[in-house]
Amino acid sequence: MERGLSLLVDLYELTMAESYFRYKRNDLATFDLFVRQLPQNRSYLVNAGLNDILDYIKNLRFDKGCLSYLKTQKLFSTSFLKYLAGFRFRGDIWAMPEGTVFFANEPVVRVTASIIEAQIIETFLLNTINLQGTIASKASRVVSAACGRGVYDFSLRRTHGRDAAIKAARASYIAGFKGTSNVLAGKLYGIPIAGTMAHSFVMSFVSELESFKAYADTFPERTILLVDTYDTRKGVENAVRAGLELKKRGYNLLGIRLDSGDMVSLSKLARKILDASGLNYVKIFASGNLDEFKIKELLDKGAIADNFGVGTHMGVSIDAPCLDVIYKISEISARDGKFTPTMKLSAGKANYPGRKQVFRIKDKGGNFIKDILALEGEKINGTPLLVKVVSRGKIVYRAPSLEEMRRYLNVTLSGFPAGMREVYSKYKYPVEASLRLKKLTEGLRQKLSGMQ
Amino acid sequence: MERGLSLLVDLYELTMAESYFRYKRNDLATFDLFVRQLPQNRSYLVNAGLNDILDYIKNLRFDKGCLSYLKTQKLFSTSFLKYLAGFRFRGDIWAMPEGTVFFANEPVVRVTASIIEAQIIETFLLNTINLQGTIASKASRVVSAACGRGVYDFSLRRTHGRDAAIKAARASYIAGFKGTSNVLAGKLYGIPIAGTMAHSFVMSFVSELESFKAYADTFPERTILLVDTYDTRKGVENAVRAGLELKKRGYNLLGIRLDSGDMVSLSKLARKILDASGLNYVKIFASGNLDEFKIKELLDKGAIADNFGVGTHMGVSIDAPCLDVIYKISEISARDGKFTPTMKLSAGKANYPGRKQVFRIKDKGGNFIKDILALEGEKINGTPLLVKVVSRGKIVYRAPSLEEMRRYLNVTLSGFPAGMREVYSKYKYPVEASLRLKKLTEGLRQKLSGMQ
Repeated sequence: MERGLSLLVDLYELTMAESYFRYKRNDLATFDLFVRQLPQNRSYLVNAGLNDILDYIKNLRFDKGCLSYLKTQKLFSTSFLKYLAGFRFRGDIWAMPEGTVFFANEPVVRVTASIIEAQIIETFLLNTINLQGTIASKASRVVSAACGRGVYDFSLRRTHGRDAAIKAARASYIAGFKGTSNVLAGKLYGIPIAGTMAHSFVMSFVSELESFKAYADTFPERTILLVDTYDTRKGVENAVRAGLELKKRGYNLLGIRLDSGDMVSLSKLARKILDASGLNYVKIFASGNLDEFKIKELLDKGAIADNFGVGTHMGVSIDAPCLDVIYKISEISARDGKFTPTMKLSAGKANYPGRKQVFRIKDKGGNFIKDILALEGEKINGTPLLVKVVSRGKIVYRAPSLEEMRRYLNVTLSGFPAGMREVYSKYKYPVEASLRLKKLTEGLRQKLSGMQ
Repeated sequence: MERGLSLLVDLYELTMAESYFRYKRNDLATFDLFVRQLPQNRSYLVNAGLNDILDYIKNLRFDKGCLSYLKTQKLFSTSFLKYLAGFRFRGDIWAMPEGTVFFANEPVVRVTASIIEAQIIETFLLNTINLQGTIASKASRVVSAACGRGVYDFSLRRTHGRDAAIKAARASYIAGFKGTSNVLAGKLYGIPIAGTMAHSFVMSFVSELESFKAYADTFPERTILLVDTYDTRKGVENAVRAGLELKKRGYNLLGIRLDSGDMVSLSKLARKILDASGLNYVKIFASGNLDEFKIKELLDKGAIADNFGVGTHMGVSIDAPCLDVIYKISEISARDGKFTPTMKLSAGKANYPGRKQVFRIKDKGGNFIKDILALEGEKINGTPLLVKVVSRGKIVYRAPSLEEMRRYLNVTLSGFPAGMREVYSKYKYPVEASLRLKKLTEGLRQKLSGMQ
């Protein structure tokens, strides 16, 4: 873990902690991390980020540097700072595995811990699920729109900083992308790395053809030529020349890349020119501000592409760059150790009380028909989605590989109605509360309204 | 610098470098980093991120771990990997200081270096300016909308990861925010940190009043009470009780925070209740999905707020989460050391050739009237915006403090027409090319069109 991550926290988590500490109100509490409502253009979400959360939990310490900074703020008592010096997360965490499909109001992470510990980890948990869930969800849509064609992450240059860059590569790989241009993400996560060439490469040679020949000569087995620097038709013709030279030497030109102009007519033209020259094996890569909407439009109009390079729009999830993800207290223990459910009543911001599990219900054909939000311990005939990942501060979860996460997501998605994955889907998957949960919620609402 | 940042690079930068290396085509070249067009809702942009760029340039190395990973890709020659092992950036960089106001087509960073070096740093430069410029520009709009009221960064929980979180705090501070909830950003950059309390704090006590008293007792000089957990009117009344108790003990309650509901009527009600109780010094903080549009609407409708907590919408720049930032080659040297201007012709993606400077032109009253994009060496009666920051690989720039950057931006903005800063501004600041630059561009366009 990077140093100092324990301070990646909203100040109020620490001031509240000081107050809890002072009042010895460090009772156990349960918090749910969930999304209040789906963002626009999303009919489902994909969870990602658990790996980072577990890493954070394992290594969470307030070292000397952190503590001396906090001391300078003149907010904290010496005894509280001493408490922080020995701070460890010692609670329990349940979470949905990475690659799990989820919906609004479903706890994605559920924390039961002393209230100080549960609050101190809040900010990091929200930040992590927000970013990686946002990107995995967007990327999953792009994969669907490409209808089986390869999709590559080219977003590094326009993600929100270095952390977002490597997480976007990872989240999009979980979602089914085939690789990334991001070398560091390749190194850190073992994701296949891929790339073509830039316009500047072409421009730095005396002619386009010379630049193509030089590149093909350097990477005879992995050359993808960018053909739109000057004029795309001439670019494709130059790629044919370079491709035929490679062929003579026993190599196959891998592909050409189209990055601008009318992709529909240009891709058809390119395919025709390539095929007419006996280069029917040369793949067409399309790039340039692509996302699921653009890919669908291109394919609907008959564009010919074997692979898509998808950058900015996916890497910042441009139409919905964040989730309405929140972290709400749902129960608190009294001194006697018994837990009491609780909830917030703020206008439009109420949440379900109690310690909950999410069950995914199948019909006889094995297709998902609804999710049920129930209280822990309820017998529901479905698959529970939350699994225990931290027990009394210890990681008790063996994380699957990225490959396993990809497969898990892919298989899961095929169990939902096909309409849910359409780019312009209006499908709303049903998420219900169990009868017991509904009763608890209603009763508590009435009780709390009279409480102030 | 974090380890391994040299691999935060698009793979094609390295494969192109291998090809340049092989062909000994490591001539000098100049690249411009600029924004092709302003995003929606933006009439100007604010530069930020230079600090990170200089740190990156200074420390850029391919260490053993990087090199062995690259070797596993079976793409690179031994001699090129050896070259990378000794790699340093040895070129020149000119850049606009952080806090500079800029517009479309203006080089924000200009790199002159061997083409391999210039390409290898491309991805990091784009990523950095994209994120920090996006956020500084959004945050500057929020500051304008608040009309002198305090604005605080509460975005940490919903930024795109940990790097974006600290950079959002820093960029928004440059833009004029008063502080951040992000403790790590406070520690790293010396930004004032601030916070209130969460709903969960209120809910974890037997009553709202008890939670208020506990917090006020812990931080008698810095208490801001969140009043909307159950019912806002009752919440304000409880805040009054806690405030009066504090008063008896000789302390002033700092504020109350409104986070939901009809902010206009609730803020008026809260002000009335507070004033009627002799607590007219208690400030009102407003929060909850705020941005410049919402703040303007609230103030237009007469909402009463002394400070705003602004989170997600600013932290991800929700309406425009990225800049159309690109990095284009503008000249290349021949073997004789003479530079030849160059440009790209792709449909809708052409750029200005040659080594350029941006001049900001004032009228006699000292107000900015236009910017002129000119070739280096042209005599233009205006302030040049690009300054030399790296000379032959050495940092030659003394970065101003964040406080200086804030002042610089604030003073600069007052020199532009007031209409430019309006939330719904349609103002378009004129950016012109000099006559010489226009002629060069036109001549080159004709020459290159016939070149393939």
